[in-house]
Amino acid sequence: MTTALDVQRIASRLAEFARDRDWEQFHSPKNIATALSVEASELLEIFQWLTEEQSKEPAREAMERVKEEIADVQLYLVRLCDLLQIDLAAAVDAKFAANVRKYPVHKARGSSKKYDEL
Amino acid sequence: MTTALDVQRIASRLAEFARDRDWEQFHSPKNIATALSVEASELLEIFQWLTEEQSKEPAREAMERVKEEIADVQLYLVRLCDLLQIDLAAAVDAKFAANVRKYPVHKARGSSKKYDEL
Amino acid sequence: MTTALDVQRIASRLAEFARDRDWEQFHSPKNIATALSVEASELLEIFQWLTEEQSKEPAREAMERVKEEIADVQLYLVRLCDLLQIDLAAAVDAKFAANVRKYPVHKARGSSKKYDEL
Amino acid sequence: MTTALDVQRIASRLAEFARDRDWEQFHSPKNIATALSVEASELLEIFQWLTEEQSKEPAREAMERVKEEIADVQLYLVRLCDLLQIDLAAAVDAKFAANVRKYPVHKARGSSKKYDEL
Repeated sequence: MTTALDVQRIASRLAEFARDRDWEQFHSPKNIATALSVEASELLEIFQWLTEEQSKEPAREAMERVKEEIADVQLYLVRLCDLLQIDLAAAVDAKFAANVRKYPVHKARGSSKKYDEL
Repeated sequence: MTTALDVQRIASRLAEFARDRDWEQFHSPKNIATALSVEASELLEIFQWLTEEQSKEPAREAMERVKEEIADVQLYLVRLCDLLQIDLAAAVDAKFAANVRKYPVHKARGSSKKYDEL
Repeated sequence: MTTALDVQRIASRLAEFARDRDWEQFHSPKNIATALSVEASELLEIFQWLTEEQSKEPAREAMERVKEEIADVQLYLVRLCDLLQIDLAAAVDAKFAANVRKYPVHKARGSSKKYDEL
Repeated sequence: MTTALDVQRIASRLAEFARDRDWEQFHSPKNIATALSVEASELLEIFQWLTEEQSKEPAREAMERVKEEIADVQLYLVRLCDLLQIDLAAAVDAKFAANVRKYPVHKARGSSKKYDEL
């Protein structure tokens, strides 16, 4: 696992990529959120008929597709953050901290319930 | 925009978070891919009735929700990479390079067609 | 537009289709709900880069794909109802009635807000 | 299971519902496809942390939510067909017949592979 994802550099490259192809007209936040959701489903599709156990060790070809779809989701996520000027790392830290508060260990232990049902 | 996302640190914290709550039993790659797709839809839901123009400047409350859903997607993405031992930054670089090849500027300019229809 | 969808006949044919192929092992409600969501995304994908106006008159080829994806969603929906013994028509009637209550004309007029924000 | 879904009547009621609330402005096929996909994800969310076995007998409260989300998907599906003048029953029949051709029993038996990998 790489230590870090260079979000700023990826955002710059994606912006340039879109500008060069005159794709900025298509890149409203609404459309990017749609594309991101479509890619997330393509990722899910790879696992849809596998058992949970099977999903732990995907076949080599499936793994290649998983990597591509994960990358697609990540690229659209960075693009969306860039368009809306959202600090991705700060958003992640804030949400993780919120999850720690919402799911205290003694309540959440072994349960898959949502925080408001615990 | 932050310069970098500390993927390794986030992965470690998520793994500890799951271990502490005995949630590893729920965290098969299949389930995480499902949860990721559900979060991507919750992100999309915020934009669903907005026009593309409106989506460029979401109301303040909508922006707070956007940040939370973006973070949820990012957290599950890192968790999935950790479970399947995927190098997220390498996957992103490889996919971006593939996109540059698949969408040459002179062919893709101003078109929203898929690469295999260009 | 056809007047009616013969839900019972479709359910029977799908059950037989699965039985003949020994696919019942894959058809847990969880998996069918996943497949349904994946198909709904494939439907959305057709519209993702179109403007709202363009989406009102899809090109002929796009229309063919729309019909196929709509059918896929419908087939999984009937299959899921059959597996869980849900009366689809009754569920639809109940939900429509609930929507009428949740969105009174004088409050909802011209607004895309959710009922709990009206 | 009801024998039939009165598609035409549902379409008429949905059209009137939208007209009365001045919601036609929001109901482009693109937006309806988005809403449908969001509802399909809300349906999936109910099952996301259940095992396949558990999903076969959802708790009573979960079943109520399943019915509501299934109805939401069905309502948007009919609305989309109405907007694009698609004959839902004909589309379903055509797709089912195509599936029978694509997945011959002797090839598909016991396999969850896609038709182009069989």
